[in-house]
Amino acid sequence: MKVVFDQHSWHLEHAGRILISHQPDRPCCYVGHGTASVAMYRGNFDIQDYVDARVPLSHAVVVAEDAGFRIALHHSAGTEPDVVLTVQVNEADAIIRFEHAADSINRLWWRVVATPEEHVWGCGEQMSYFDLRGRHFPLWTSEPGVGRDKSTHITWQADVTAKAGGDYYHTNYPQPTFLSSGRYALHAETTAYADFDFRHADFHELQFWAVPERIELYGAPTFVELVSKLSTRFGRQPALPDWVLGGAILGLKNGLDHAERIIKQSQAHGVRVSGLWCEDWVGLRQTSFGKRLFWDWRWNETRYPDARNWVKSLNERGIRFMGYVNPYLCNDGTLYQEARNAGYLATSADGGEYLVDFGEFWCGVVDFTNPDAAQWFAQRVIGQEMLEAGLDGWMADFGEYLPTDARLANGVDAMIMHNAWPTLWAEVNARAVAQAGRTGDVVFFMRAGYTGVQAHCPLLWAGDQSVDFTRHDGLQTVICGALSSGLLGNAYHHSDIGGYTSLFGNRRTPELFQRWAEMAAFTPVMRTHEGNRPDENFQFWQDETVLEHFAHMTRLYVALVPYVRELMRDAQTRGLPLQRPLFLHFEQDEHAYAIQDQYLYGEDLLVAPVHEAGRTDWQPYLPAGAQWIHLWSGETYEGGCRVTVPAPLGEPPVFVRADCARRDVLLALATC
Amino acid sequence: MKVVFDQHSWHLEHAGRILISHQPDRPCCYVGHGTASVAMYRGNFDIQDYVDARVPLSHAVVVAEDAGFRIALHHSAGTEPDVVLTVQVNEADAIIRFEHAADSINRLWWRVVATPEEHVWGCGEQMSYFDLRGRHFPLWTSEPGVGRDKSTHITWQADVTAKAGGDYYHTNYPQPTFLSSGRYALHAETTAYADFDFRHADFHELQFWAVPERIELYGAPTFVELVSKLSTRFGRQPALPDWVLGGAILGLKNGLDHAERIIKQSQAHGVRVSGLWCEDWVGLRQTSFGKRLFWDWRWNETRYPDARNWVKSLNERGIRFMGYVNPYLCNDGTLYQEARNAGYLATSADGGEYLVDFGEFWCGVVDFTNPDAAQWFAQRVIGQEMLEAGLDGWMADFGEYLPTDARLANGVDAMIMHNAWPTLWAEVNARAVAQAGRTGDVVFFMRAGYTGVQAHCPLLWAGDQSVDFTRHDGLQTVICGALSSGLLGNAYHHSDIGGYTSLFGNRRTPELFQRWAEMAAFTPVMRTHEGNRPDENFQFWQDETVLEHFAHMTRLYVALVPYVRELMRDAQTRGLPLQRPLFLHFEQDEHAYAIQDQYLYGEDLLVAPVHEAGRTDWQPYLPAGAQWIHLWSGETYEGGCRVTVPAPLGEPPVFVRADCARRDVLLALATC
Repeated sequence: MKVVFDQHSWHLEHAGRILISHQPDRPCCYVGHGTASVAMYRGNFDIQDYVDARVPLSHAVVVAEDAGFRIALHHSAGTEPDVVLTVQVNEADAIIRFEHAADSINRLWWRVVATPEEHVWGCGEQMSYFDLRGRHFPLWTSEPGVGRDKSTHITWQADVTAKAGGDYYHTNYPQPTFLSSGRYALHAETTAYADFDFRHADFHELQFWAVPERIELYGAPTFVELVSKLSTRFGRQPALPDWVLGGAILGLKNGLDHAERIIKQSQAHGVRVSGLWCEDWVGLRQTSFGKRLFWDWRWNETRYPDARNWVKSLNERGIRFMGYVNPYLCNDGTLYQEARNAGYLATSADGGEYLVDFGEFWCGVVDFTNPDAAQWFAQRVIGQEMLEAGLDGWMADFGEYLPTDARLANGVDAMIMHNAWPTLWAEVNARAVAQAGRTGDVVFFMRAGYTGVQAHCPLLWAGDQSVDFTRHDGLQTVICGALSSGLLGNAYHHSDIGGYTSLFGNRRTPELFQRWAEMAAFTPVMRTHEGNRPDENFQFWQDETVLEHFAHMTRLYVALVPYVRELMRDAQTRGLPLQRPLFLHFEQDEHAYAIQDQYLYGEDLLVAPVHEAGRTDWQPYLPAGAQWIHLWSGETYEGGCRVTVPAPLGEPPVFVRADCARRDVLLALATC
Repeated sequence: MKVVFDQHSWHLEHAGRILISHQPDRPCCYVGHGTASVAMYRGNFDIQDYVDARVPLSHAVVVAEDAGFRIALHHSAGTEPDVVLTVQVNEADAIIRFEHAADSINRLWWRVVATPEEHVWGCGEQMSYFDLRGRHFPLWTSEPGVGRDKSTHITWQADVTAKAGGDYYHTNYPQPTFLSSGRYALHAETTAYADFDFRHADFHELQFWAVPERIELYGAPTFVELVSKLSTRFGRQPALPDWVLGGAILGLKNGLDHAERIIKQSQAHGVRVSGLWCEDWVGLRQTSFGKRLFWDWRWNETRYPDARNWVKSLNERGIRFMGYVNPYLCNDGTLYQEARNAGYLATSADGGEYLVDFGEFWCGVVDFTNPDAAQWFAQRVIGQEMLEAGLDGWMADFGEYLPTDARLANGVDAMIMHNAWPTLWAEVNARAVAQAGRTGDVVFFMRAGYTGVQAHCPLLWAGDQSVDFTRHDGLQTVICGALSSGLLGNAYHHSDIGGYTSLFGNRRTPELFQRWAEMAAFTPVMRTHEGNRPDENFQFWQDETVLEHFAHMTRLYVALVPYVRELMRDAQTRGLPLQRPLFLHFEQDEHAYAIQDQYLYGEDLLVAPVHEAGRTDWQPYLPAGAQWIHLWSGETYEGGCRVTVPAPLGEPPVFVRADCARRDVLLALATC
């Protein structure tokens, strides 16, 4: 990349394309001042901003220095600079550092040159839109919402009853990083509230609610190299352990006897079982909303009598045990008292007790900005109560709820720390595992994330889909989440088979479970979930046909393991995700750029999950430049168009790239 | 008022209170640039703005001149002024003129000093909130919405099916004018999109999408004098003619025979009838939404055979005939062809035909910026087809739909003309009436309005309420509309008895009709409406009890005429509205400032309409500083608190001020 400047203007270019451009009448930077109002209700945020000034920094003074360029930006010539940047460039990359800014500035807008036909991806784990162009994306970790589509009745009901309907951009895992079809990526280093706006024809506008530390630009000749570069930047995950690959992890949450019964029934039907995940290991709390977990992270001996010996017996049968934890402690639990006595909890602004409402129970927030508190959670809670107690993994839930008016030990405004919290939470989990010497064996999975979560969290899960096929909250959102987060260095992704959220009479059907299991077989981890209302929703063990279908899908999953091991090596060496957008390996096919309901599983498999009810066929798009063999029929199709294939239950639309080395091995999957 | 200035700052003060204040770090004016996107769907607008610059004009240079003060506002010292103002003041008033502004400016924000406890009213005809404090009010004439409350199912359905749900600030009649409890009023002279923001503790912020011509400030020692001053500023209406006061205007729309039958039935039950209003006088059009009117403004001889003679026979029976008109012409009608051939229609940007979608039929917009077109509509359409054809009044509907991409004869951007349209439309109607020499006898009524409509439109109507008691779209919104518009010089207000909009299964009940009629008896005009779906909704003639109740209310209305004549004189001489907020005559009672579901009818009657279903009593607030006699029981209550009174159907909560001169006459209303 290079910086070019004259008396009045400057620009940054890469491979002949201008990425950043400043001219006096079209500056790249605007600064100003805003007053935010933030209201949180159980992880759903209402965020408003009153911007009283937004001033173009029209006047730029560029000085070439040894290490790069120093650029002073002024709102008018003859005034003190409002912002001073330094820009360092090398062949393919650039770093723009915000060295100085006037104290009054708390809003900054930065423009990146765009072209009308450009595609843009990333911004964390996006559940609704993979190609971000044409929309803006507020970047703030939160509940993703129920329905997430203001035109649906379920969204409206969720909004009215609990401010919980959400919208297309709500996500547990935002990240101020995007990739462009112009073969570059941009990352902003900040945890402040941000809003990336891709609606304009000739510029992208990045809004920050604090002056960022820096903007990083990465160029590469191919998408694969670009993704690889980002993975190096953000950190890589260890390969999944063998035990996970042995079959499905059964999510059960009704005590020991229930777990034993379902395992036995499943195995009797040929379901391959690698693990048992019981979020109710900590016991339950009865509320008017139904059964909730008791957020005091220790075995509940009533629900799981003689738990440690029972886990040993599971292990002897080749089944690992996984639990559940989150960064909050209920104020009627024992750990809360320990943490509070030690001063490990975030406080209110005046230093008093700060409790967060989680729905008829209240929790303290362990203050991970206090190193002693973080270590306590890692060693005392996760180390002693979980790892030593026999857990080989867990859902590391939440991380999105840091209230913006809490007072933290590091003295930083909670508005700034809010987005940082998921990564701090991931780091606590990873440290606990590392301190036990079990990195790469213990597997925890998270839905919340932010920049840097890649280095700590071995496995993402797609959060709480509704138990349906809806466009913005159903099965297909999982694919969008996997693809967007995968481009930013999260190689491993999975989801709750059958979805989670059942509200307002929305119920899981057997068909939904089966379609979801068909997709999950072609993801790194298969894991079921009973959902938020187990008794009202279909469970896989309630129907022989579904049990057999599920057993088939676990056999498929296990048969894929040799291939998946190669993909995991690829993830470790090149930083490529296992689930990949079509364009990653078919750059020349621009039609593939916007496809978000299909994916490449490695280079050789194309997966196009059925995400509508009542279908017996499906019309996948096959990327141009290859021939594709339909797994079940053996038919070969030329890429570059949509084809119609039969897609009865049990035959998910999957294609093998005709010229791949593993062709015969992969085609043999049809008979497993 | 006076202007005070020194080297760096200036302010405008009135009666010891600072109204406008400029200091370098707290300027009163911000300017900038925005790009709007406006989408209209059948009168509902989705308006977005992208503001790329909002610059404080920190540097002010004030020069005292003979005629006032000349104030140059700069974003930085040493630059050309961005805006130049002149300020002229007299004892009680001030005018701030925007003499010059930089060409690049298309957004301007102006701050007015506020106090935390201040109340603010006005902004046209507001249907949801009378006291505007704590909210912002976009000012753009539009459909008001169905439901107007995002938490209701009906609003959601209207939004999803037709983008028509609306919100609290949507109104047919906005106006950039407000009154403050600080005993001043502010009016901005502009028709640009505006947004008045009363959410801040220490300032109000007025946003304009064009540099306004001027800001006018009016001070007065009392609210009565302030309202009187505004009425002088905006224009006064003629008194209502005697014929209107003779009873109810029956809104019927099913042809001649239906009208005759209902009139006969009504009169047989003692209903006093002054007029017949048949919007279907032009005939019908069948669409998939149901029956619509045929928008070609001439008698339909099939529906109304021998109409002129029939109207004469009605007149001989003491009943006037009223019709319906709006500023659009359907493209399958005769008048459309006349107007098009003469070049009287607004065109598309390229000069081609411009048709607006009204729901399976399409209309041209008569271009009232063309003086010949306006005169054609007044003389040819209203004069010949309506006045000469026997009409003594009409609903002058619409005015809110000017598309922002239409091209107009006067060359002004339709974004600027959109808000001007209702007043142009009112002026066309008023001119037609005046040219026939019938001002003060012919009565037309409008829902749309803007600055200046006061001088032309003799009677407002509250638009299309839903047929219910809901907070934001039901009966009580009529009171809010009457009070807010009344403060700005609209003395005469009324509404559709029983409401209009019946959608999504929402149906008018007999009780709703009766409560509405009880309110309407204490307004200048009683008029019924069959609603948008007559066959599915209750009509007053379908129930003997309701007919008798309605007859009673028309007797009450007629019995009030001597009192109402005095109020009309008051309107003409002092510019006071007939329906008045409690605080207008009880300034010292701050509790009265926010009451919007009751009103004073003149100085001597307090009306507190029942606006909930199933009530048999009611708790009105009685203003402090007077004693109040309950009309029906004769009980006397001390003001300054809420009292509970019986409120069965037929006994609307009405109180007579105990010390008024007309006391006995008014108390006799109970026996009429």
